[in-house]
Amino acid sequence: MDQQIQIFDTTLRDGTQGEKVAFSAEDKLRIAQRLDSLGIDYIEGGWPGSNPRDMEFFELAGQASFDHAKIVAFGSTCRAHTPPEKDRNLALLVDAGTPAVAIFGKSWLLHVEKALQISAEENLTIIKDSVRYLKEHDKEVIYDAEHFFDGYKANPDYTLSTLKAAEDAGADVLVLCDTNGGTLPHEVSEIVNEVGKQIDAPLGIHAHNDCELGVANALSAVQNGCVHVQGTINGYGERCGNTNLCSLIPNLQLKQNYHCIPTDNLDQLTAVSHFVSEVANLNPDIRQPYVGRSAFAHKGGIHVSAVMKNEETYEHIRPQQVGNSRRVLVSDLSGKSNINYKAEQLGIELEKYGDKVPEIVQKLKQLENKGYQFEAAEASFELLAKKMTGAWEEFFTLEGFRIIAEKNISGNSRTEATLRIKVNDQVEHCAAEGNGPVHALDKALRKALIKFYPEISEMHLTDYKVRVLNEKDGTGADVRVLIDSAKRSDSWGTVGVSHNIIDASWQALTDSFSYYLAKQAKNIHQKEAI
Amino acid sequence: MDQQIQIFDTTLRDGTQGEKVAFSAEDKLRIAQRLDSLGIDYIEGGWPGSNPRDMEFFELAGQASFDHAKIVAFGSTCRAHTPPEKDRNLALLVDAGTPAVAIFGKSWLLHVEKALQISAEENLTIIKDSVRYLKEHDKEVIYDAEHFFDGYKANPDYTLSTLKAAEDAGADVLVLCDTNGGTLPHEVSEIVNEVGKQIDAPLGIHAHNDCELGVANALSAVQNGCVHVQGTINGYGERCGNTNLCSLIPNLQLKQNYHCIPTDNLDQLTAVSHFVSEVANLNPDIRQPYVGRSAFAHKGGIHVSAVMKNEETYEHIRPQQVGNSRRVLVSDLSGKSNINYKAEQLGIELEKYGDKVPEIVQKLKQLENKGYQFEAAEASFELLAKKMTGAWEEFFTLEGFRIIAEKNISGNSRTEATLRIKVNDQVEHCAAEGNGPVHALDKALRKALIKFYPEISEMHLTDYKVRVLNEKDGTGADVRVLIDSAKRSDSWGTVGVSHNIIDASWQALTDSFSYYLAKQAKNIHQKEAI
Repeated sequence: MDQQIQIFDTTLRDGTQGEKVAFSAEDKLRIAQRLDSLGIDYIEGGWPGSNPRDMEFFELAGQASFDHAKIVAFGSTCRAHTPPEKDRNLALLVDAGTPAVAIFGKSWLLHVEKALQISAEENLTIIKDSVRYLKEHDKEVIYDAEHFFDGYKANPDYTLSTLKAAEDAGADVLVLCDTNGGTLPHEVSEIVNEVGKQIDAPLGIHAHNDCELGVANALSAVQNGCVHVQGTINGYGERCGNTNLCSLIPNLQLKQNYHCIPTDNLDQLTAVSHFVSEVANLNPDIRQPYVGRSAFAHKGGIHVSAVMKNEETYEHIRPQQVGNSRRVLVSDLSGKSNINYKAEQLGIELEKYGDKVPEIVQKLKQLENKGYQFEAAEASFELLAKKMTGAWEEFFTLEGFRIIAEKNISGNSRTEATLRIKVNDQVEHCAAEGNGPVHALDKALRKALIKFYPEISEMHLTDYKVRVLNEKDGTGADVRVLIDSAKRSDSWGTVGVSHNIIDASWQALTDSFSYYLAKQAKNIHQKEAI
Repeated sequence: MDQQIQIFDTTLRDGTQGEKVAFSAEDKLRIAQRLDSLGIDYIEGGWPGSNPRDMEFFELAGQASFDHAKIVAFGSTCRAHTPPEKDRNLALLVDAGTPAVAIFGKSWLLHVEKALQISAEENLTIIKDSVRYLKEHDKEVIYDAEHFFDGYKANPDYTLSTLKAAEDAGADVLVLCDTNGGTLPHEVSEIVNEVGKQIDAPLGIHAHNDCELGVANALSAVQNGCVHVQGTINGYGERCGNTNLCSLIPNLQLKQNYHCIPTDNLDQLTAVSHFVSEVANLNPDIRQPYVGRSAFAHKGGIHVSAVMKNEETYEHIRPQQVGNSRRVLVSDLSGKSNINYKAEQLGIELEKYGDKVPEIVQKLKQLENKGYQFEAAEASFELLAKKMTGAWEEFFTLEGFRIIAEKNISGNSRTEATLRIKVNDQVEHCAAEGNGPVHALDKALRKALIKFYPEISEMHLTDYKVRVLNEKDGTGADVRVLIDSAKRSDSWGTVGVSHNIIDASWQALTDSFSYYLAKQAKNIHQKEAI
């Protein structure tokens, strides 16, 4: 029988302490609902006492319904010399209307004396009073022992007495926090073991990643008896982040006999990770374990040829178990295996042009030397291969374009593009306004093409990235433009490189349209064949 | 007495297996020299048998001199049924001319049978023959036991017999590799312990980060007797990367009694990490432990006020120990402490305008709601605060600009900007060509300003980033532009947000120039006062 571990998500609270992480109240609600579907037990929504946005979230959450998760409000113990019933922070915690609350208290004498500036005894009193007050208001109380490990190393007896104060007052779980993230796994293991001998209440762990050990410390705590783990999606959080639940959950559940979320939901992990980074408007970390775009990406030729023979050879789990998938990267380290695998995936029959394969590899190496990168621009690679194997006809050719962007003395801005292209010997001349040069160009190109290819209206650009190459060359630098495009859930990336950013953008833009049109033409062709 | 641990860097070999990581031969040499200065013991430069770039690196390295580090060439054991003296791969390894070589052999029967397709016995023979051949050529031999942990779990006896084959043939160190990155720290600890009982040769560890445990597994191996650790700068490497040396080294050396690199060099870690990401042309990971820009960044108001009282309260080490520094972030979670700390750092005397502080905080929250982000644009925040406290005079005002970008039928591209600005009631009208709209605008603005402010020639733009906000709004999306600028080693960031990318760029551009001019004016003023 697997041991049950409570998962407590604090993406919406400690996660937002991370640099560049911010959510609106509505964002928070969307994330909470997604975490609920994933099967997370507790969702810490914010600190009602600290800002109006968090108050708004608890209002929204109160009107929403959750199948499994308990929403948690976070706050501190009451102020010294204040009876709990007169403490504004505790009142706001009760008013948040959540079934559970998390309150943090001080474990480390240094903090009691330097930060709170109260006596050791007064600190025990406010812990006891606060927990008791919240229990009297029928809350499930999660007690976060802030700086527990640092406090324990300095003075184990006092630190244990703070835990006992919370336990005596009825706290439901005592969470040992490595607030500064400086503790090592063997220390976590020793200390959790010792604490377990002294305390009867269930124990939890809250770890940070300052030593790159946020996941390892949580694992170590669970292996030594903690039954509650706090963490965040993608490890977002203060400084270097918190325990990353996207790694911790599969480590516990796929590799050991612990049960965290319903097994059937594990394959939602990749989607939830990307969803949260999208809502946070942050680029997903491609190297992220389990859920990252590169987590099952093979670049070395030897690895690719082995994985093609037997997936266990270079993959520690099946990527599908966490909703991820295998990728084979094309780069100048690529052997023939990579090119073959890729071509197969893309439906290019390389056998037909077998003698062209070395030429494609050669061209790829040349372009990568110039700054092209096809790893995130698979559509541009496919076009390249098609053009080189002769399986390609242009959908349109450029006769010329001009973009004018201006700002006048009143501060108004305007950007306009005019464009001439030729389709089947017919010249189209169009103009459009846009939010910027590439947007105006995109709109003008659509206007010109739609008469010939009405399916253009169904695809759109979703992201546009510019990277300055060879920064040390200053103004002589080349730039690389990556464009992501999509038609509903289907998406593709294209790349352009040039001295001139508009020129690089034009390459990526036309690759995107051409790739899409070729794909549509193939689908129509296939349908007609059936 | 501290225990010495050999540090083996494979950034230049396994690091380049990571997605988006690529180095030229010259890049590799620059990195190797930097690692040598840091005090790394072994630098694995590449696989001479796999591509011409690596061959070129070993040629360059042969002509360079290294104070401390040994350069290592990497390759595989010889082919089955081939005498080692006739094996091309071993010949290339010898020819690379390095004092040490690393060769990998198969430990896992699955691989021997499925990937190599040879017998268990033949595999032992090629390991023995290859190591012996390299020892006969006076090489220090590092034997990498590929898939050691997976192999050991499947068949401990066979796996140990591969190690013994390498040991008997004279290998100098036997490196236990967790090639697929699927092993957990408690398994590493058990297995390393067992192996230590059977093998006399020194043991090493090579771990991957597929479970977010690359650093934890290396720590666990060292604590159980390994004396050699392989890893990469920033954890770059295949899939989710390798053991991150930027975290491992301080974990071993600042927190435990191990010695890796000269203590005086530890404060180079942050600079080396950023140097390698610059050469790889990748954005540094701000959340990276120890060396990341956010590693000692405080956002929550409570943390800031505590850190200002006593740094130990929220910092696990002093940031200076690894060459990093503390930052205080300004965001809508900011309390008054953050604004005060920031203002103090920037030399804004908030006391003088004490009643304006709540207004600044209010404005900040409004702008962040619109999509501005000041965390990486401290110069724009300073201008904002100065403008609100009345301590500001404009250096120039815009009368208008127009940008024309065009591409003609022959494929040639051209971008030109014309610009009118007013300085001290004098209107300047200039034109310039550039690589793109913002570059042309930058050049025209410089032309117009230089007559009044010749110091402009000393600063330049170093990076330009565009982020589409609210992607779900499609073409109605706002964009945020971040510009980094520098004058020699001094750098600053500015931000602009608008519906129109040119407009957002103009905001960030003028903020950069204005910030620089204000700073120069203040320096002159201070010099005059002395």
